[in-house]
Amino acid sequence: MLKVGYQGKHGTFSEIAVMNYFAGQKIEQRNYSGFPAIMDDCDAGILDYAVLPVENTTTGIISRTYDLFKDHHVHAVGEIIVPIQENLLVNPGTKVEDIREVYSHPEALSQCQKFFASHPWMRAIAYQDTAAAVRFVKEDQSRTKAALGSALAGQYYGMETLAERVNDNDKNMTRFLVVTAKEEKVKDADKISSMLVLEHEPGSLYHALGILAYADINMLKLESRPIPQEPFHYMFYVDFSGNLEDPIVAAAITKLREHSIEFRILGNYRAADVK
Amino acid sequence: MLKVGYQGKHGTFSEIAVMNYFAGQKIEQRNYSGFPAIMDDCDAGILDYAVLPVENTTTGIISRTYDLFKDHHVHAVGEIIVPIQENLLVNPGTKVEDIREVYSHPEALSQCQKFFASHPWMRAIAYQDTAAAVRFVKEDQSRTKAALGSALAGQYYGMETLAERVNDNDKNMTRFLVVTAKEEKVKDADKISSMLVLEHEPGSLYHALGILAYADINMLKLESRPIPQEPFHYMFYVDFSGNLEDPIVAAAITKLREHSIEFRILGNYRAADVK
Repeated sequence: MLKVGYQGKHGTFSEIAVMNYFAGQKIEQRNYSGFPAIMDDCDAGILDYAVLPVENTTTGIISRTYDLFKDHHVHAVGEIIVPIQENLLVNPGTKVEDIREVYSHPEALSQCQKFFASHPWMRAIAYQDTAAAVRFVKEDQSRTKAALGSALAGQYYGMETLAERVNDNDKNMTRFLVVTAKEEKVKDADKISSMLVLEHEPGSLYHALGILAYADINMLKLESRPIPQEPFHYMFYVDFSGNLEDPIVAAAITKLREHSIEFRILGNYRAADVK
Repeated sequence: MLKVGYQGKHGTFSEIAVMNYFAGQKIEQRNYSGFPAIMDDCDAGILDYAVLPVENTTTGIISRTYDLFKDHHVHAVGEIIVPIQENLLVNPGTKVEDIREVYSHPEALSQCQKFFASHPWMRAIAYQDTAAAVRFVKEDQSRTKAALGSALAGQYYGMETLAERVNDNDKNMTRFLVVTAKEEKVKDADKISSMLVLEHEPGSLYHALGILAYADINMLKLESRPIPQEPFHYMFYVDFSGNLEDPIVAAAITKLREHSIEFRILGNYRAADVK
C-alpha cells in the first residue's frame, strides 16, 4: 500500500488534495506536523509520496515548502489544485447571533475579512490549523464558539454548517505538488518545474527567459527567492510548458543549463485542471 | 514634528529602522499593531511617513506589506536595511542551563534553529513580536524563561544578554521602505520601484525585461504576486537602477507603460547601503 504524507490532521485541505489525487488507489495516509519532516521522510524513501502546498491564489507562494526543494532531492510527479472554501462550522444547535469567537488558521481568518466585517459580534482567533480548530470547538462543546474549516472537517467532527464559502475571494485555490524520491516517468507530462541560479550580472534573467521565449515554450510561473548567504541576490523557480522528451524542450534545457550557475529540473508532470 | 508610523512596540527591528533612517531629526513615533492601518493612515496624511519591512534576506518577500501597495497611493521615498541580530535576553541572574522556554516571533525562532539544536533543553515558544516577548519575560520575572530579541529591546526592558547574534545566518537583514502620501522629489535618487500588470501572453515578461536590458538599466529585483481574481495569473513588482529625470530611464518607462496593462512607479529613492 502506498504511503502518502501530508501536513496536518484529518480534515485539512492537504488531506483533500491527497484524497482527490489518489482517488481509487489504496493508500496509507501519514500525518505530519511540519513540512521539513515530510520532505526528509520522502527523500529517505519512508514515504512513497508527499503532497505539499506550494501556492495559493490569494496569498501567493508558500515559501516554507518551496525552499525545501533546495536541500532535498525529490521529484515532482504531479500537481493538484484544490478550491479552498471555508465554512462556518459549529456544534449542532448553535445560533449565528450567539457566536462570539471564531477559530481557524491565521491565513484562513485573513481570507474571510468581509465575513468578519459583516458579523462584528464575532472575534477571529488564530489556531494552528483549520482542522485542529474544528476539533477544538467540537471538544469544547461551546455554543458561543465556531471554527472556519473545510466541509470535510465539518463531516469528520459531526459539526453543523451555519454558512458556506465565507472566504472573500470565491476563486481561492491552493496548488499542491506530489513529490517522490523515485525516478518516475509521467505519461503525457506537459509541465516542467525548474530551479535556477544565474550569474549576478545585468540581463542574466532576461537572457534565460529568452531561451524559453525563442523556443516558443510558454513560461507559466516565475518566483524569485533569496540566497541567504548573498544578501539581495536571488535564485529563481521557473515553471514552463513541455515534455522533457520533446527535442525542442531538451535543447532549450541544455541552453538554460549552460547559461546557469546551477540548474535543476524539479519535475515533469501533468498540469492540473483549474476548476 | 514629523509623525512616523511603524509596526509593533518599542524595541522591534522596525523601530531600529525608524531611528536609523530619521537619525538627527525630531520625530514623533506612532506604534501600530497591523500593516493595513499604517498604510491607511499614511494614505490619509495622518502620518507624515511610514516605515514598512518589505523583504528579509533569509525568508524573502514580506507579502503582507507588498500587497498593500496595490490599493494605497503612497510613494516610496527611501529605504533602509537593518541587520537582524537576535540576542538571548533574560532577567538578570538567569543561568543558561536553567532556561526551559524561549519566547519570540515565529520568524525569529525559525531563524535560530542551530541555536535550539545545540541547546536541546530549551523549548521555542511563539509570541506576537520580538519586543512583546522580551516584555513578557521581563514582567513574568522568571529565571527559567528567555526571549529572542534586539539589543535595543534588551536595553529598554533592562534585560541581561546571555548570548549575542544567535541567528543561523550571520547575513540576516531586513529591508524597509519609507513611504509618504506627499509628492516628494528625492535628491540623487538612484533606485526605482515599480508595479506591472502584463498581458497574459507568451513572452510578455521577457519583452518587459528586454526594455530595461536594452537601455542598460540594471534590474535589482523581480517579485511575482498572484492576481486573486485571475487564478494562476501574476502581477510583478520590479526594482531597477535609475533616476526618473534621466532621459534614457524616462524613455524606458514610457515603453514599459505602453507594453503593460497597468504600470505604476511606486517610488524613486536612494538605494540603501548593504552593510
